[in-house]
Parts: sequence; C-alpha cells; structure tokens
Amino acid sequence: MTSERLPAQLAFLREADKLKGILRHSRVTFAARRENDAEHSWHLALAAMILAEYAEPGLDLLRTIEMVLIHDLVEIDAGDTIAYASDAAKAAQAERERAAAERLFGLLPADQGSRLRALFGEFEQRRTREARFARALDRVQPILQNLHSHGAAWRANGVTAQMVRDLNEPIIRDASPALWQRMEGLIAEAEANGCFPAPDAP
Amino acid sequence: MTSERLPAQLAFLREADKLKGILRHSRVTFAARRENDAEHSWHLALAAMILAEYAEPGLDLLRTIEMVLIHDLVEIDAGDTIAYASDAAKAAQAERERAAAERLFGLLPADQGSRLRALFGEFEQRRTREARFARALDRVQPILQNLHSHGAAWRANGVTAQMVRDLNEPIIRDASPALWQRMEGLIAEAEANGCFPAPDAP
Repeated sequence: MTSERLPAQLAFLREADKLKGILRHSRVTFAARRENDAEHSWHLALAAMILAEYAEPGLDLLRTIEMVLIHDLVEIDAGDTIAYASDAAKAAQAERERAAAERLFGLLPADQGSRLRALFGEFEQRRTREARFARALDRVQPILQNLHSHGAAWRANGVTAQMVRDLNEPIIRDASPALWQRMEGLIAEAEANGCFPAPDAP
Repeated sequence: MTSERLPAQLAFLREADKLKGILRHSRVTFAARRENDAEHSWHLALAAMILAEYAEPGLDLLRTIEMVLIHDLVEIDAGDTIAYASDAAKAAQAERERAAAERLFGLLPADQGSRLRALFGEFEQRRTREARFARALDRVQPILQNLHSHGAAWRANGVTAQMVRDLNEPIIRDASPALWQRMEGLIAEAEANGCFPAPDAP
C-alpha cells in the first residue's frame, strides 16, 4: 500500500512547492516585497492557533488549520485575485479554481484527494463554524499586513477605508464580533494616519 | 479580557511576520532562490497532514502541526544553522534559541506563552511521538527540496550522500521506518544522478 500511496503523496507535496511562487498584493512588513501564498498560509495557520479563543464555541481547530493550509493551493493554477476585484473577475476566478482543485487534489490517493476537495469546498461555502473562522482570518491577516506596511497595497490599488469595512465586516463579524471590533478600531486609526488613498475632492 | 489579550496576540503575530525573511540553505524547486522559514513551516504542516498515516499509531495531529508551525520562530532572533554544522556551532545556536524563545513567546499572554514554550521544548527534546514525527518531517522536507533542485544546497555545502544518511536516518527511521525506506531509495537515486559533490580521489 505504502509503495503506491507514498510516491503520489510526495508528488503532491512537490507540486505544492509552487505555492511559494504565487505572489499576493499584500506586503511583508520588514522589506519592500510582496508576500507569497505559502507564507500567507503559514501566517493564517499560526493566527488560527493564537486567536482560536475568539471563534464560535466548539471550534475544531485541527480542521480549521487544515483548511487554511490548503485553501490557496488552487492559486498554483488559477493565480491570485485581489479581494476587491469585480464580480465578473471573481466568477471567472472561481471557475479556474474548481478546475485547479480537480488537478491538484487529483494527484493524491483517491481518499485523500476527496477529503481535501471537500475541505476546500467547505472553506469556499463558509457554512461551518470552522470555515467561517478560517475565512475571517483570511480577511484579518491582509488587513494587518496592510496596516503594518502603512497601507501600501491599499494605496497602490485605490482601496479606501470604506471599501475595507464594506468587504470585510460581514465575513469577520459573522465569525468573531471581538475580532471585528478590534479591526474596526485599527482601520479607524489607519485612516487617521493616512494609510488610505486621499479622498477625491467633493 | 479581550482588551488586554488581543493586542498582545496581534503584536506576536506581527513579530512572527519576520520569519518570512529568515533564509534557509534549501531552495524552492521552481526558481533560483532559497526558501525562507515561513514557507518551510507551511510545507512541513502540509506534509504532516498528508503523511500522518506513516507516523506512530495514536498521533495527535493537531499538536504535531502546531509544533511545526512554531518550531522555527526562534530563528527570527537566532538565525538558521545548517543541519550539518559542527557540534560547537549547534550548541551556540541552541543557547541563542533559548533566549529567542523567551523573548518571542513572552510577547503573548502568559498562558499562551507558556504553552508555546512547552511545545517548542517538546519539539527540541523529541521524546513524544508527535515530536518524533515533527522532527522527522523537518528532515524529510529539506531532503526532498534538495532532490528536486538537483542537490544544489548539498553541492554548495559539500554535503555527501553518506552525510545525509548518517545525519537523517536516526531521526527519520525512529519516527517512521516507511518514510526512511523511501528516503533511502531517493538518496540512492540522487547519488546515481550526480546530485552530490564528486568524491575526493582515493
């Protein structure tokens, strides 16, 4: 059994290495470079560990962490789309991600491939408390990265404080009112500190 | 409570961002660059998920993954040491890592800081099945990265196939004979394919 399964599993782990080359719009905080999806996924998993106490009671932390570890793998084929993209761009992206999930999770032994496809679907659908918390963290982490790099990606992409609030409040507050309350405070501070693009003249 | 804990937890997650800037000797497989500790930690956590069936029975996968997610954080202060360093270099590194664990985990609320220090100690001591498996993965992953980059880091550092076997067999076989058997086969293949430095003339 090992002799068939293990080579397939190692081939999947080799393919997964490419996640380190998928660049995001957010920056690392200590240098002038964008972060990649593998770094982001690690940071999310660490955040899940550290912030689990703010999730809905009864959270299965292992499944939450597994979800964040694999949630961006589809971007190896489908690429990254900024959270503030148009609905049409997001729909096209979702279709590319479905095909990518088939190919990538299809490298694994069938039982594991099915499990990871289901885990990815759970993350996308946001119906379980684990998926709600994972998706909230996936919004919290880039906000924090942006705050720590003085809004570089927001200003580069014309993203205003109100856009950040409108897009993220439903996802973050739904999973954790305490986390959203803190984010709201930090966004207001960032606004006062000029981290967002200057508003158009009235 | 939230009002005291959450800012400390976010400060820790911000400091942890620096792990993305700690370069390892191993390379990513798709480009001519070294990988960093955050990418490596993500890849290890994914490997723990995918390869858990080869661990000793009864593995607590959540604790294993938590261990690999935090095991390299101390390198933010202490830097990376190649696995093939001298004993003296490794002892000095261990001392720097102890101080780093105090500072970094000390950023967290006391209960979480203690828990993460204990988790890091567990990884270092390799006495539990979770620590044995985590440490084995921490050896398997760089071997795979080296194999996939045709031994670039081995040749750059004069690391022979025998050195790879001597250093890694005790750690990997102890946690998973099946994984070691596969690694042994891959190392032999790599030797045949010229992935190691040319031997000295007799």
